[in-house]
Amino acid sequence: MKIAIIGYGNLGRGVHSAILNSSDMTLQGIFTKRDPKSLNLAADADCYSYDDLFSKSFDIDVVINCGGSYKDLPLTTPEIAKKYNVVDSFDTHANIPTHLNNVDKSAKDSNKTAVISVGWDPGLFSVARLYEMVALPEGKNYTFWGKGVSQGHSDAIRRIEGVLDARQYTIPKEETLKSIRLGDTKDFTTREKHERYCYVVAEEGADKNLIEKQIKEMPNYFSEYDTTVEFISKEEMDKNHKELPHGGVVIRSGKTGFSKEYNNNIEFSLKLDSNPFFTGSILVSFARAIYRLNKEGIYGCKTIFDIPPIYLLEDSREKVISSIL
Amino acid sequence: MKIAIIGYGNLGRGVHSAILNSSDMTLQGIFTKRDPKSLNLAADADCYSYDDLFSKSFDIDVVINCGGSYKDLPLTTPEIAKKYNVVDSFDTHANIPTHLNNVDKSAKDSNKTAVISVGWDPGLFSVARLYEMVALPEGKNYTFWGKGVSQGHSDAIRRIEGVLDARQYTIPKEETLKSIRLGDTKDFTTREKHERYCYVVAEEGADKNLIEKQIKEMPNYFSEYDTTVEFISKEEMDKNHKELPHGGVVIRSGKTGFSKEYNNNIEFSLKLDSNPFFTGSILVSFARAIYRLNKEGIYGCKTIFDIPPIYLLEDSREKVISSIL
Repeated sequence: MKIAIIGYGNLGRGVHSAILNSSDMTLQGIFTKRDPKSLNLAADADCYSYDDLFSKSFDIDVVINCGGSYKDLPLTTPEIAKKYNVVDSFDTHANIPTHLNNVDKSAKDSNKTAVISVGWDPGLFSVARLYEMVALPEGKNYTFWGKGVSQGHSDAIRRIEGVLDARQYTIPKEETLKSIRLGDTKDFTTREKHERYCYVVAEEGADKNLIEKQIKEMPNYFSEYDTTVEFISKEEMDKNHKELPHGGVVIRSGKTGFSKEYNNNIEFSLKLDSNPFFTGSILVSFARAIYRLNKEGIYGCKTIFDIPPIYLLEDSREKVISSIL
Repeated sequence: MKIAIIGYGNLGRGVHSAILNSSDMTLQGIFTKRDPKSLNLAADADCYSYDDLFSKSFDIDVVINCGGSYKDLPLTTPEIAKKYNVVDSFDTHANIPTHLNNVDKSAKDSNKTAVISVGWDPGLFSVARLYEMVALPEGKNYTFWGKGVSQGHSDAIRRIEGVLDARQYTIPKEETLKSIRLGDTKDFTTREKHERYCYVVAEEGADKNLIEKQIKEMPNYFSEYDTTVEFISKEEMDKNHKELPHGGVVIRSGKTGFSKEYNNNIEFSLKLDSNPFFTGSILVSFARAIYRLNKEGIYGCKTIFDIPPIYLLEDSREKVISSIL
């Protein structure tokens, strides 16, 4: 399988590493909207301009689009699907149906296959929610994220005047997790589910009280949470907070039995030293799956729910069945 | 969807309950190799002889075969697949490829659809192992069962002379789980992974020391484990050990990154008050899936790995995508 990467931020690097670890794949090139010569490559690769993907001819089986969900993927994934099989990690939940529809049209017109919203949430967590519902139709799903770095929230803090750098950790509230594990199925508030912890490097002479107030009162991002702000030095930030760890858990508790007399719990949880490298491996497996679907003449845009799990692994069906079923 | 149940042991009752909880299904009948009038029904249902399934005409979309893996399913599932779509929970790992092949032949000959080895292991745990490998291709799977009742091991104790009743709990060793969570990827011995705890009701005057020795030295079942035997009264057995709780966890730890510098952990875990009622819900969802596959003209015998998750839930694809992706 010949793979192209679009975009070389954290996720692009994660995908790059995952391709090097897949014996059935080769990297055909990295495509960027920046200057191709400017990329800080982690390993050798050919780099091209994004526009080359359309104006020149490449031997590419699947494109893995590592652009951002906000402005980039809604435009580029449908565009790419007109010419290539494509995978993305679109994660703006509310806009998934529209994006799916747009990519589906492009892909069907060109007999290509696409899959959107691949990663861990949306992604593995979504499919965990589904299988948990299969086993416990009468029950309730809860998803917790963290402990881990939220890049969107870290960026929001960095936009405040007087802030040089920031890292925001999302942390699930242990007491809420505990009560769900004991069978509680109430609707927890935002504040009851997660707290937010912010490490901030301030400019010399900046008004730290004002920065803290601006963070804690920021609507959507922080105002609904218990938020802690800790000012640290640039050295401490670089030493202790340069990685992007993350994690989370999807829990469902539900009742079974003729009189709903039995309690049951299912949990799917992650603990990751590096979010983008983990997500990279998942994207690469779904590139494999849509390559195979396309070979079988199955076109259009899929989600993680539409893809038989057997298409995801390098090994043959026979080997997977005899080894892990 | 019109469903038939074959067999009315613990699992048959679990499936019966799950059908009553599914608004898109009706129970057409329970078929048994015993006397149909002898079944101890948990809720009203029509009961028939197993042979009626072949000699008479029924309006059945899917048969859920709740027979035993050892002697029953290898014969009955291929036989049923000649006439009906069928689901079973065949769990003799080593014989899955042969069973799959036999059922596949019958189903393809008759344009029927089947799925075998559905439940939680094989079943949800298998698909969890697969998705964990998708995200962490370089890593290692571990599966732990318990704390829960092993019916096979309980039966084995009951066959010892002087034993009136027995219940065997399989318990994962916490210290081994802990070291895997910390990144240990060694091969643990059978003894290091699980221990076995046996509650036994002995006949009056029976030689308890001899019973304990026979249990602890029983090959395959107990000799490779740390086993504890506790003798209790019949009253205590009936009071505290009449249910069939179970649980377990599938853990994978693995490394990512260009230099394999990042550690990651994934866990999928269950805690069930009742094993058969939980398994019943899963079988019913897979009956729904193969009914849909059959309508689309997809025939033969499938495994949990071959079925797109979206086929499992009652809700439409649009609703599932907008609510849980």
